[in-house]
Amino acid sequence: MAGKVGVGLLGLGTVGGGVASILQNPSERHPLVGELELIRVAVRDLNRPRPVALDESLLTTDPSAVIQDPAVDVVVEVIGGLEPARSLILQAIAAGKSVVTANKAVIARHGQEIAEAAAAARVYVLIEAAVGGGIPIIEPLKQSLGGNRINRVSGIINGTTNYILTRMAEEGAAYDAVLKDAQELGYAEADPAADVDGLDAADKIAILATLAFGGSVDRSAVPTDGISGLQGVDVDYANQLGYGVKLLAVAERMAERMPNSDDPLPLSLRVQPTLVPKDHPLAGVNGVNNAILVEGDPIGRVMFYGPGAGAGPTASAVVADILNIAGIRKASDGPGKVDPLLAASSWRPCSLVDSGDIRQRHYVRFKTKDAPGVIGNVGGCFGQRNVSIQSIVQFNASDAGAEIVVITHEVSQRQMNEALEAIQALPEVSGLAAHLGCL
Amino acid sequence: MAGKVGVGLLGLGTVGGGVASILQNPSERHPLVGELELIRVAVRDLNRPRPVALDESLLTTDPSAVIQDPAVDVVVEVIGGLEPARSLILQAIAAGKSVVTANKAVIARHGQEIAEAAAAARVYVLIEAAVGGGIPIIEPLKQSLGGNRINRVSGIINGTTNYILTRMAEEGAAYDAVLKDAQELGYAEADPAADVDGLDAADKIAILATLAFGGSVDRSAVPTDGISGLQGVDVDYANQLGYGVKLLAVAERMAERMPNSDDPLPLSLRVQPTLVPKDHPLAGVNGVNNAILVEGDPIGRVMFYGPGAGAGPTASAVVADILNIAGIRKASDGPGKVDPLLAASSWRPCSLVDSGDIRQRHYVRFKTKDAPGVIGNVGGCFGQRNVSIQSIVQFNASDAGAEIVVITHEVSQRQMNEALEAIQALPEVSGLAAHLGCL
Repeated sequence: MAGKVGVGLLGLGTVGGGVASILQNPSERHPLVGELELIRVAVRDLNRPRPVALDESLLTTDPSAVIQDPAVDVVVEVIGGLEPARSLILQAIAAGKSVVTANKAVIARHGQEIAEAAAAARVYVLIEAAVGGGIPIIEPLKQSLGGNRINRVSGIINGTTNYILTRMAEEGAAYDAVLKDAQELGYAEADPAADVDGLDAADKIAILATLAFGGSVDRSAVPTDGISGLQGVDVDYANQLGYGVKLLAVAERMAERMPNSDDPLPLSLRVQPTLVPKDHPLAGVNGVNNAILVEGDPIGRVMFYGPGAGAGPTASAVVADILNIAGIRKASDGPGKVDPLLAASSWRPCSLVDSGDIRQRHYVRFKTKDAPGVIGNVGGCFGQRNVSIQSIVQFNASDAGAEIVVITHEVSQRQMNEALEAIQALPEVSGLAAHLGCL
Repeated sequence: MAGKVGVGLLGLGTVGGGVASILQNPSERHPLVGELELIRVAVRDLNRPRPVALDESLLTTDPSAVIQDPAVDVVVEVIGGLEPARSLILQAIAAGKSVVTANKAVIARHGQEIAEAAAAARVYVLIEAAVGGGIPIIEPLKQSLGGNRINRVSGIINGTTNYILTRMAEEGAAYDAVLKDAQELGYAEADPAADVDGLDAADKIAILATLAFGGSVDRSAVPTDGISGLQGVDVDYANQLGYGVKLLAVAERMAERMPNSDDPLPLSLRVQPTLVPKDHPLAGVNGVNNAILVEGDPIGRVMFYGPGAGAGPTASAVVADILNIAGIRKASDGPGKVDPLLAASSWRPCSLVDSGDIRQRHYVRFKTKDAPGVIGNVGGCFGQRNVSIQSIVQFNASDAGAEIVVITHEVSQRQMNEALEAIQALPEVSGLAAHLGCL
């Protein structure tokens, strides 16, 4: 392909503005940036103030005019939300345009439909900005780790909750107070549910799992627990036991899969507040930073760390995707052939295991009467259900009662639930006050 | 390109064996691995035991027979050393074959010659395995960060020295004892000079700088200081002051470069033992792990972490490169066109600044008489040369004398040297006992 690569932008908010700003200032960046040309930009309101100075003639309120413009080779969707984003992405694919999007919600829910349309049209849909902000994680998963059998992808992939958890840990502050502060500072939305309830992280781990294991997963079936119920006392106890608390998203294979079998690969996905040992690489990831750990054979364990959100980092990821499309078009004589690594089509079926079969370590805190033998009785209930315990510690014993914190070895959710039921039936146990994961 | 992609291996040591093992066991990896076919393997001795079972008919003692085999599309050089590796790489390029190599010594010294030959022949020379073992760092620099103006690349890029430094810090052990142990465990060579003198890290930072800043640098001009002179007492003092000691390799731009100027971009490169604040992302990188931090605009700071050496991780990186070549050939109708991101040709001249102009913070330790006023006199010498001090601390005062440790703010090497000369001329200072970098 000769000449410039035409870029059409759908949306000119903070990310769209960041992308436009890079395209307008190619100096000091890779020279291929200078071969990208911003052709048209769809905005909702022509008269709103812009984060970046743009020639008025580029603007339109009609997204289809951007998509259908013959000079537009790549359509960048940075509107967000499910609709009209999904329809516009499909419209661009149907028009034979490659698409770059930062939209994790659309990709997590409609990724398979979009990928199938892209494969049929032989175009790319690239999503580096959808997970981990500026951190290169999508492209490395696709282009640098293909020789591995991936066993596990886990990480801190929501900056808002990590900011809140970091401040709770460092200041001993309560969740509500830190959330309010985060909202005032712009780190949390006025309606923080998508972040603090773990929904955003669940979108992202579903996307990472699809790329790491080669098949799409059912986003709606990912067990998801957020941080809105997390109490400062558990952050404090975890700290005393040598752990930090992080909102962790995990995707792991649950079985060796026989070669040549057509059975789906069983995967376990989950999002939950999780104790992370202080010497673990993820434990030092603080503030709005994100980090993703990939474990595979033969590579071992690699981690990708950086700013998980923000206009600049996200724009960096969007431009990386545009550059990849521009670069590969230079190697090709024309449309009709795609690089299978960059296209990253599904290559096998995957399925989520029943949540009872998810295996992990657990942290639980019980409120109990300060009666002799309570530790023995709690420990006995775990033992009878074959739940092996790593530590059991009593905190805050007083006339009003005590708190018992248990960290288990790896067990299935089913075993754990049975043991918890039995323990809560003990007369000296007044309740289950907290239940978190543990690495 | 239809059919399988033929791979020819030059060398069947630990890395070559690891690569062969992945190619022979494609199950559970990206399906493109199954489209790679090992065609021929050059070994030094046909009768030596192999790390992997291979059909005898694949083996030859003639590397040229591998390179010239018409079924070989990609030549993988894992012999190591400067010659015959350099000549064989050039021979493969001349034969129109793309090359994958793990050979940092050849690329650091002959990278420009090799890149020019590859550009003329329109083939790829990919080097993911040359830096950071299995960590994806070369491909992300080329394919995921091109929208950024890179300001700085720094990292822990030698596993042997990081293993030694980690044990010195954790056990308070002396350098010589840990080195001996590392040699017995196979983490250090019998002749450890390339690692402990920083030469290996200098090769790697020269390669990273070339990719990050777009132009080749003079490897022989990189100021390089290893860890063989490092004393345990400085690791201990650094710890007390809130720092870890790491062998850090740094490449940074030294000036804003005017657009449209043809002057070379001035860069500062160095390898030296460096104090790293304990809350810095690089401080937690322990043992044989490596990590590379990339700082740019607008991305901010991203870090890549993982196993910096070993047969498995290195083989993972080599196979990633082969897959990238195989993938892009599927998108192309034939040879003659290359993806400029993956090819990563130089795009501007770079030059190293005079070592006197390198600016950084410093850690120095003086042996002094325990005389009143010595701290004031040392501080005065720094002040007169405009070297601003962050902290000055006296350790171990006794009749035999004292030790004074100074950490400066950022100053030029030239200013620092002048101040050190003046201080060493003070009658109450008996000598400069240590001089390290500081982040």
